[in-house]
Amino acid sequence: MSTIKVVALNCTLKASPAESNTGALLENVLGHLVDLGAETEVIRVVDYNVPFGIESDLGDGDEWPKILEKMTEADIIIIATPIWFGVRGSVAQLVIERLDGTYRQINPETGQFPLYGKVAGVVVTGNEDGAHDASATTLYNLSHFGLVVPPNVDCYWVGDAGPGASYIEAGGDRHLYTNRGARLLAENTYFMAELLAANPIPTNLVEVQAKAMADSSRADA
Amino acid sequence: MSTIKVVALNCTLKASPAESNTGALLENVLGHLVDLGAETEVIRVVDYNVPFGIESDLGDGDEWPKILEKMTEADIIIIATPIWFGVRGSVAQLVIERLDGTYRQINPETGQFPLYGKVAGVVVTGNEDGAHDASATTLYNLSHFGLVVPPNVDCYWVGDAGPGASYIEAGGDRHLYTNRGARLLAENTYFMAELLAANPIPTNLVEVQAKAMADSSRADA
Amino acid sequence: MSTIKVVALNCTLKASPAESNTGALLENVLGHLVDLGAETEVIRVVDYNVPFGIESDLGDGDEWPKILEKMTEADIIIIATPIWFGVRGSVAQLVIERLDGTYRQINPETGQFPLYGKVAGVVVTGNEDGAHDASATTLYNLSHFGLVVPPNVDCYWVGDAGPGASYIEAGGDRHLYTNRGARLLAENTYFMAELLAANPIPTNLVEVQAKAMADSSRADA
Amino acid sequence: MSTIKVVALNCTLKASPAESNTGALLENVLGHLVDLGAETEVIRVVDYNVPFGIESDLGDGDEWPKILEKMTEADIIIIATPIWFGVRGSVAQLVIERLDGTYRQINPETGQFPLYGKVAGVVVTGNEDGAHDASATTLYNLSHFGLVVPPNVDCYWVGDAGPGASYIEAGGDRHLYTNRGARLLAENTYFMAELLAANPIPTNLVEVQAKAMADSSRADA
Repeated sequence: MSTIKVVALNCTLKASPAESNTGALLENVLGHLVDLGAETEVIRVVDYNVPFGIESDLGDGDEWPKILEKMTEADIIIIATPIWFGVRGSVAQLVIERLDGTYRQINPETGQFPLYGKVAGVVVTGNEDGAHDASATTLYNLSHFGLVVPPNVDCYWVGDAGPGASYIEAGGDRHLYTNRGARLLAENTYFMAELLAANPIPTNLVEVQAKAMADSSRADA
Repeated sequence: MSTIKVVALNCTLKASPAESNTGALLENVLGHLVDLGAETEVIRVVDYNVPFGIESDLGDGDEWPKILEKMTEADIIIIATPIWFGVRGSVAQLVIERLDGTYRQINPETGQFPLYGKVAGVVVTGNEDGAHDASATTLYNLSHFGLVVPPNVDCYWVGDAGPGASYIEAGGDRHLYTNRGARLLAENTYFMAELLAANPIPTNLVEVQAKAMADSSRADA
Repeated sequence: MSTIKVVALNCTLKASPAESNTGALLENVLGHLVDLGAETEVIRVVDYNVPFGIESDLGDGDEWPKILEKMTEADIIIIATPIWFGVRGSVAQLVIERLDGTYRQINPETGQFPLYGKVAGVVVTGNEDGAHDASATTLYNLSHFGLVVPPNVDCYWVGDAGPGASYIEAGGDRHLYTNRGARLLAENTYFMAELLAANPIPTNLVEVQAKAMADSSRADA
Repeated sequence: MSTIKVVALNCTLKASPAESNTGALLENVLGHLVDLGAETEVIRVVDYNVPFGIESDLGDGDEWPKILEKMTEADIIIIATPIWFGVRGSVAQLVIERLDGTYRQINPETGQFPLYGKVAGVVVTGNEDGAHDASATTLYNLSHFGLVVPPNVDCYWVGDAGPGASYIEAGGDRHLYTNRGARLLAENTYFMAELLAANPIPTNLVEVQAKAMADSSRADA
């Protein structure tokens, strides 16, 4: 079996070389994936020119196509995002919006979107609250593009209510629940990626659409 | 391979025999699963005595244990819920809360919660808005209990903004997108259930917890 | 000016006399409101027979009408809820669903729903995450029934990621951000309630509906 | 009484001069506000250079300070956003993140954030689902900055489940519920803005913080 590839998008608001709390937790997760045998790559989205939009290539210096190509070659895709105001940050939202373009890129052989059958994970940090919302929204969105969500693939850290230290300063690397989450994310995405590499999802979206049209006609009759 | 079993919880607020819009869409989905070879069963939760709480058996006439037992025997679990006020209904929320008890029922042989490795789907109806929120929250919660979320396993119907006809009256069975969703839910949960029956997730939560404790200690040193 | 009345619904899942963490934080908030001159009353919803549904009176021993009557007489309504699985608990959801009935009780004199012009606040506790979601959803829903949401009327406490002590055991009464939230909720709801008592919102929903119908016709022409 | 000023941020992903569905509905709302006597201004955020971040001025050509200044001078602030993937779009999220900077700009005379006591409204369009989530999250976030949320100040339009025509093409200007929402948003924000102009919220955040510190110390003793 070929090596499992992981592409992780760090959706921090801060361009390099600023320290990223989300990036720090992400590295923890990726370490476990490397131990399991995966190849990993991190893309810090704000370091690229990625305009707002819903197409896969907006031209004019748009660097999203480079990122999307890496995602298309990966087996596991991890979206890492800070929480801002109780929800995922704007860069993660922008990433999901840009993926809208993949809906219009059905592979004629498989009848599937380009990310169909890949495996999803999320890494979330915030100083207080919103990890469930950020994780749920992101994993759900990814499932629409065709990703599979194994159990316990949301690794997050949040502190207690209100302003306070972030992951690095707070010593989040000692937090048991978060460390458990990091290992579960790694183990379960890795297992599922190997399983799906050997047993691809057969669903053909073009055929399903045709059957659904027949269903609708029948109901109409 | 033994027959795939599907247990669907209809979380309508209305006790039998009142007509359930969510139930009508659910039947559509289950029809496809039967066609694929599955055995299906629907449990209308409000027809049972299921008190509020977070334990698997609250005693005193609690009928949740009966429902949980059926879920434990299933390969695919579908939560079907109406939307109320933009989010899943209170009965679906109650169901998720009662599943909290499964966190304290780790199987000593597998090191897993009782629902680990089962496959999730959701069916959602509402007259206007909230299907994404209801679906995302529910699938995410189920993934914490150990369920796998394949792509496109959220089948929903909503009408346009504001009050209006519900699924049955609006002729939702003619709605192409919803009919597509019904087929995708069925095909993808069925494929994944067969795949996981032959290749169970090996993750042992007790061992992961021990490793995470070591990680935390190391970071602390 | 007559005394400002506060009705608070404690939506804990646990019936009396079990200790309620949400109730403990709520008492803190109500203490400040009493200091400001308000009369307060707490209703622990699960101590009453309140069936699932969307009407103001389901008959057959339904005790919701008693609760709704108290809400109708109040100036300030506080919904206090635990977080379960990242969102508000099922009892709070049930309460919002039952309030659907008020949409069908427009006062013919004012052209308003029975709760129009009252002031909203929320109190939320959870051991880790979900306060933003629970608060936002609840305040937003209340604004549909006619309540006004002043600034900073969400008082919440959550601990850090994962399982852990709840508000009382964790000494949440020492948490500065939560204590600040308790005072802000009290001061801002009280100010707004007095202001609106002297200056009622004049909006007439029947008249607005008629104007909107004319708008729609004009656009259609 | 001086003229009520309304600043509306159109958070469409599309730069001018592309047609904006959200902008079309927003104009409808603003027309009612003008009829009531308000001055209105629309800012299309993507037409400005507004980088990701959480400070009020990031320097280096950052045009957010211009936008923030206009918001600071307004009585009513409307956030207009498209829905993308069930939640508010990335530009609206970016706007909320940039407002984080106002938390660090307490007016020494009033003890308040710069937007304290202004009145909030939201305008949301999407082709199918997510208006509740986008509205609730945005209004709630605005209430943290100090804005007041009157009843029914969320004007939205969504079509039925799945892809489909957007507001303009679908003839959303004929949709009764949305037209009702446009009038309610206008009437209720206008009333509240006049009321608060004459009766400012007296809350002093510095004093509240000091009292909360005393509360925490007492609880600690």
